[in-house]
Amino acid sequence: MKHSLNSYHATDSTTMMDTLNKNTAESFVKISRRGREMQRSPIRKLAAIAEARKKQGIHVYHLNIGQPDLPTPAPVLDAVHKFSRPTIEYAPSNGLPESLKAWKKYFGHSGILFDESELIVTTGGSEAITLAMCAVCDTDDEIIVFEPTYANYNGFAGIANVKLRAIPTTIKNGFHLPSEEVIESFVTNRTRAILYCSPSNPTGTIFSREEIQRLVNVALKHGLFILSDETYREFAYEKKAISIADFPQVRDRAIVLESCSKKFNVCGARIGVLASHNKEIVSTTLKFCQARLSVATIEQLAMVPLLENPEPYTRPLVEEFKRRRDLVCAELKTIPGVVSYIPEGAFYIVVGLPVKDAEHFSQWLIEEFEYERETVLLAPAQGFYVTPGKGVNEVRLAFMLKIDDLKRSLKILKEALKLYQRTSTE
Amino acid sequence: MKHSLNSYHATDSTTMMDTLNKNTAESFVKISRRGREMQRSPIRKLAAIAEARKKQGIHVYHLNIGQPDLPTPAPVLDAVHKFSRPTIEYAPSNGLPESLKAWKKYFGHSGILFDESELIVTTGGSEAITLAMCAVCDTDDEIIVFEPTYANYNGFAGIANVKLRAIPTTIKNGFHLPSEEVIESFVTNRTRAILYCSPSNPTGTIFSREEIQRLVNVALKHGLFILSDETYREFAYEKKAISIADFPQVRDRAIVLESCSKKFNVCGARIGVLASHNKEIVSTTLKFCQARLSVATIEQLAMVPLLENPEPYTRPLVEEFKRRRDLVCAELKTIPGVVSYIPEGAFYIVVGLPVKDAEHFSQWLIEEFEYERETVLLAPAQGFYVTPGKGVNEVRLAFMLKIDDLKRSLKILKEALKLYQRTSTE
Repeated sequence: MKHSLNSYHATDSTTMMDTLNKNTAESFVKISRRGREMQRSPIRKLAAIAEARKKQGIHVYHLNIGQPDLPTPAPVLDAVHKFSRPTIEYAPSNGLPESLKAWKKYFGHSGILFDESELIVTTGGSEAITLAMCAVCDTDDEIIVFEPTYANYNGFAGIANVKLRAIPTTIKNGFHLPSEEVIESFVTNRTRAILYCSPSNPTGTIFSREEIQRLVNVALKHGLFILSDETYREFAYEKKAISIADFPQVRDRAIVLESCSKKFNVCGARIGVLASHNKEIVSTTLKFCQARLSVATIEQLAMVPLLENPEPYTRPLVEEFKRRRDLVCAELKTIPGVVSYIPEGAFYIVVGLPVKDAEHFSQWLIEEFEYERETVLLAPAQGFYVTPGKGVNEVRLAFMLKIDDLKRSLKILKEALKLYQRTSTE
Repeated sequence: MKHSLNSYHATDSTTMMDTLNKNTAESFVKISRRGREMQRSPIRKLAAIAEARKKQGIHVYHLNIGQPDLPTPAPVLDAVHKFSRPTIEYAPSNGLPESLKAWKKYFGHSGILFDESELIVTTGGSEAITLAMCAVCDTDDEIIVFEPTYANYNGFAGIANVKLRAIPTTIKNGFHLPSEEVIESFVTNRTRAILYCSPSNPTGTIFSREEIQRLVNVALKHGLFILSDETYREFAYEKKAISIADFPQVRDRAIVLESCSKKFNVCGARIGVLASHNKEIVSTTLKFCQARLSVATIEQLAMVPLLENPEPYTRPLVEEFKRRRDLVCAELKTIPGVVSYIPEGAFYIVVGLPVKDAEHFSQWLIEEFEYERETVLLAPAQGFYVTPGKGVNEVRLAFMLKIDDLKRSLKILKEALKLYQRTSTE
């Protein structure tokens, strides 16, 4: 039997493979369904076009990504430079003792009490979320999320083979939660958990104590875990972000998920944590972690100084992001037809544009438009929705540019919208 | 409704939770089946007892673990100390360009040609294996492995919700592969891949070209992917380890999985790679990787000098391990009743002991036995078998001690076996 596949390079996986499988026998290999069905990262979709555009000499403002533009605090880099062990050894699977102690202290600064034995250091918040999903769900079990949602929850759910069931929230009330009754109506006999992010990526929304109480009530009534993604804890402008750890009624079912990436400007360090008072959650997660052995030793040590004393590093960061948010909100108001709100935290906003298809507009913007040799890269919000067809006229903006650049980006966006509305045949 | 769970700490997950669930309503939370069913790491099982024993002043020789005892090569530590970027930024999801280029060069040194676009840098070999499983399998699909197998394959399969189907190999022929017919008889309509490790952890076995050809034949006939864990490539003593990349017939279905951990003594750096000529495998894995964003930036950079020029660092390492292997094999021959063989590679051996239950013996050895205030920690081999009841009288030894300490450990093992056989009532 000849294997012409040797030189075969698929461009569109499903279609080409399906064709091949029809024509030939079972001896061809096939990618998994979960692999085929998984969507590409919506944030990185237009990145290739942006790169090509830059080569043409067009300056691109990145409003699409969450990569902080500020420097990593000196104590982190110092700790890296001073790493003095002779061997980069495996850390214990639950984390280095130094790191666990530092995370405990970190939570303590927010009045959250976890013992070291209730913590597991993870490779970024990403791993914490994936493993939490695996610890509470079997295949085809469901987790409730709120859309627009952090797009990568989809990816983690794909790996964990878990279904996300999305409850819609709307830009009309700044993406706050619906009533307890509405939330409850999404619970099925396969629901195992509620996963939420507050302050939220992608909306910047902070859920109030009363809103979180709704989630707590539903979780208590229906035996659900609560997976609380608190990555953006410090990025809270007018009001404090409430932790799920503040609700003693769900001590047995709350899982706090955290990450150093954003608060300390160390996205490339990949250090996060999973925290729970439920010993079974911790011991189960630890079993998964023992398989992957350990989290990078040097980064665990490098985070220690900031975790132990976060405030001097996060305060100026948060002040800067508040200035940026205020500017973005003010500028958005001057663009005709744009629907927005005041995000209470994080450094994102989901904005409604006066276009039919924000993905089409975003692609046109980066591919064709220019204003004085400059343009803007946006993240179409469709990728943040689980339900197809939702958020088609929305984009997410990240405040990852200096004030002047942000201002300039929004000026370009304004000009682009003017031209697009005049010329587009969408 | 009262929630006494607030102060509830489970010791035995399944039983206590089951009891609770019987007594009360559906509002209690429950760990996932995959979480409950996952076994604890067999290697770390006895570690807590060992720690307690050390506190009693007993010296413990660790023959149980694969943590290299040699220093990390200077260029790695230099690169860490010289990290000079102002921000620890996200790397691209497929890896930093510098890292991809270095991996390409690394493979080139072994005559294996991969383009950068065919590589994905991962958080250790662990992540590479987990993601390969997700890319080729859906829930309850099967992967063929050979037992005794690398224990953590079980863990990755747990996360990926994949079934491992184990083909037995035996100490009688040094754990070499059975015939093509036997291998084929394990293929079912759910089988998606064959996963093997050569040189092998835990057996040290290196499969010959002819043995790998058997796997290739079965994979071609039945449409299976081949996941080839080549972590121990350099640790090959008398004969070279053959890569699956040496078999052009399976260009479309071979996935090479690699890790820096052992060959460069950087276990705590967590850098591995997935390599395949199948573009769909690479693009699917990349989708999973986009969700988890990136691999630690500093470690990717730190591995570059060794990946580009591995031989000066791996050669002395391999020479040292050959000396250790020779010593272990010679010493084992002097212990009455022990069944062994010559492992052709890696730095492990699975040994048959003249006891009924090697787990009971290993626990007694670390908990009760001492010889001149010293004892030995072993890894019972049961944990390396998928089929319950197999390998009950076997242990895995890792050669992670200096020659003199290895010699001493085996002397202690010999004395322990003598006493155990005289006194044990097992």
